[in-house]
Amino acid sequence: MQKDNHQKLGSLLELFMTDEEAPGMPFYLPKGMAIRNELERFWREEHEISGYEEIKTPLLMKQQIWERSGHWQHYHENMYFAEVDEQRYALKPMNCPGAIKIFNHKLRSYKELPIRFAELGLVHRHERSGSLNGLLRVRSFTQDDAHLFVREDQIEDEIRKVLKMIDIFYKRFGFDYKIELSTRPDEYMGSLESWNDAETALKNVLHQNDVPFALNEGDGAFYGPKIDFHILDNHGRSWQCGTVQLDFQMGEVFNCQYMGNDQKMHRPIIIHRAIYGSLERFLGILVEHYDGAFPSWLAPVQVKVLNVADAHLPYAKYIYDLLKKNGIRAEFDNRSEKMGLKIREASLLKVPYMLIIGDQEQSSGKLTIRMRGEQKQDLLEIDQFIKLVKNAGNWR
Amino acid sequence: MQKDNHQKLGSLLELFMTDEEAPGMPFYLPKGMAIRNELERFWREEHEISGYEEIKTPLLMKQQIWERSGHWQHYHENMYFAEVDEQRYALKPMNCPGAIKIFNHKLRSYKELPIRFAELGLVHRHERSGSLNGLLRVRSFTQDDAHLFVREDQIEDEIRKVLKMIDIFYKRFGFDYKIELSTRPDEYMGSLESWNDAETALKNVLHQNDVPFALNEGDGAFYGPKIDFHILDNHGRSWQCGTVQLDFQMGEVFNCQYMGNDQKMHRPIIIHRAIYGSLERFLGILVEHYDGAFPSWLAPVQVKVLNVADAHLPYAKYIYDLLKKNGIRAEFDNRSEKMGLKIREASLLKVPYMLIIGDQEQSSGKLTIRMRGEQKQDLLEIDQFIKLVKNAGNWR
Repeated sequence: MQKDNHQKLGSLLELFMTDEEAPGMPFYLPKGMAIRNELERFWREEHEISGYEEIKTPLLMKQQIWERSGHWQHYHENMYFAEVDEQRYALKPMNCPGAIKIFNHKLRSYKELPIRFAELGLVHRHERSGSLNGLLRVRSFTQDDAHLFVREDQIEDEIRKVLKMIDIFYKRFGFDYKIELSTRPDEYMGSLESWNDAETALKNVLHQNDVPFALNEGDGAFYGPKIDFHILDNHGRSWQCGTVQLDFQMGEVFNCQYMGNDQKMHRPIIIHRAIYGSLERFLGILVEHYDGAFPSWLAPVQVKVLNVADAHLPYAKYIYDLLKKNGIRAEFDNRSEKMGLKIREASLLKVPYMLIIGDQEQSSGKLTIRMRGEQKQDLLEIDQFIKLVKNAGNWR
Repeated sequence: MQKDNHQKLGSLLELFMTDEEAPGMPFYLPKGMAIRNELERFWREEHEISGYEEIKTPLLMKQQIWERSGHWQHYHENMYFAEVDEQRYALKPMNCPGAIKIFNHKLRSYKELPIRFAELGLVHRHERSGSLNGLLRVRSFTQDDAHLFVREDQIEDEIRKVLKMIDIFYKRFGFDYKIELSTRPDEYMGSLESWNDAETALKNVLHQNDVPFALNEGDGAFYGPKIDFHILDNHGRSWQCGTVQLDFQMGEVFNCQYMGNDQKMHRPIIIHRAIYGSLERFLGILVEHYDGAFPSWLAPVQVKVLNVADAHLPYAKYIYDLLKKNGIRAEFDNRSEKMGLKIREASLLKVPYMLIIGDQEQSSGKLTIRMRGEQKQDLLEIDQFIKLVKNAGNWR
């Protein structure tokens, strides 16, 4: 069977839209935003538990900082520029310089390391207009970025932790994944020696943890080698999402330092890391992965309340209000239509739970629940059902 | 006593920083970001309860849309532009056109109205470099924007609801506030008649609800009259934050329509509305309002754990981990320093709760809690204390 693509489903489920006045820069409709907020909430929880600190850095910075970082030389054709006070600024294509500035804003001690800065950073990168595709190929997107400032003796342990975290994320969505190690490209910054050290460190962690990986010679970032994660969706397709990059260069370029135990200044190594990759693209992948039938913690509409007849309107409204008050994403189909039609429409929108409110429910105080994709109906106490839906997001 | 200003406190408490490579575009340090996330969480909860739907729209849109909206003519000197595919794009100075595009993307029925779109939208507006000031006067900021698309018969009721919501927000932070009604400026769009209607509607709501207000003739937006909210901080200073603007023009300009009960197309009226105004500026105001002593739901560090001697390190660490696991923003001062010094430092950082962990706490399983600004100490069960801190954010 031919599956619907994310654009068709995204439009049916009213998740997002695009517009010719902002090509490649998707608009989140309320239902897409609900999913994005859940993705961000999950992200925030996991990062807090894992000892990351969230930051936010400006979208615009002077061109000179991008010249210094090497992005301008290696990447300026894909960057957008604006003028402020007769100086050229760039819209950030990456979040690194911002995170580095925050690291550098005060004296750091070896005791503080590893410092793990996480940022949901909106970046802009040019793509040819012919290649744009809904959420999957865009010109503006939110990276779930992180920059870890570590001592040399912490590299392998930190990378191990990142691998574990990535595993937790992908499993949460039911993705299998494959790993690729990309090594020094033709155009690179820094010394051959530091590249060899970095590549060895990555290989060591992968070997020691028995993680199988493919080798992708010459495909590293210009500042360091990287491990890429390719998730496999329910249709067997592969998507590159996560990345872990080991960087001995940016610390040099921006003169990052920390005070060592020996009272001397040392250079931290930077690990660049993303898991979703791009929130927009990950959402697009999820739409196709689930064929729009999101698990209930992610579903834009978790519960549809359907009244059997007009006589049940007040009670159905009471139930609907109760769900909303409990922070459940509910909708109320209060039209005077046949139950069969209401159920068909809610099914089409792949709502996880339908509540049928009729005489029986009104008198018994219990709820008749119709689960997505199932014919049989369940009977639950109101409290039980609210708990069921609310706890869908608590997976730990 | 001379109070510290938000820049000094922001630096002491490590909330934010500025940098000459992005003047007027503040960086959120982890502790400032923690407060911002709480402000966003509160905002999201209140908007969900109040029937708003959250959206997100692009930062860049073609210049032509800003010419159509009138922003280009009235505002282009304060806007930044970038080039994409040889066309001029603007960084949005306001979120209106994005919200309007989402309203227009499908056929709307009178039954759907009022539609309330809320967006935490990052906007860029030029300010002279000499006038920049920390978080209070910036070039990029996040507006807590909303656009309400309403029928004529809904205007007064919706404005009443917005006034109520604004009241809830400001009271949450202990702000009194004053209201100003600003009327038609010299440069305006639309007909005199629609301006008169709009001004009358706003006056009616204010009068009917016995809300005292000052009249600010000629200070409205170019597309409609507005009600401005000036909050009064703990030092008696006044800050303009919230705004409610009634707009009969943008609906015309962008041809917004809905299908009426009469099967004919009608024009909705748009209410523009912000409460915080700018998240950055509001945060700056809060810093001074509280003199850095944030209430515990907002405090970047809610609890500081202090061990009396090295012997108490493991137990103190256990308590610290327990707090973190419960989502509490805790820090652990595990240095081998005198208790007096540790307490003085935590006091300087205005942490709401200090936990002193010594022999007694270790053997009794109870916690000794030192509250900010108080000499006396409280004894609480661990569970009780966790509940106390976690519930600080649940104010309803």
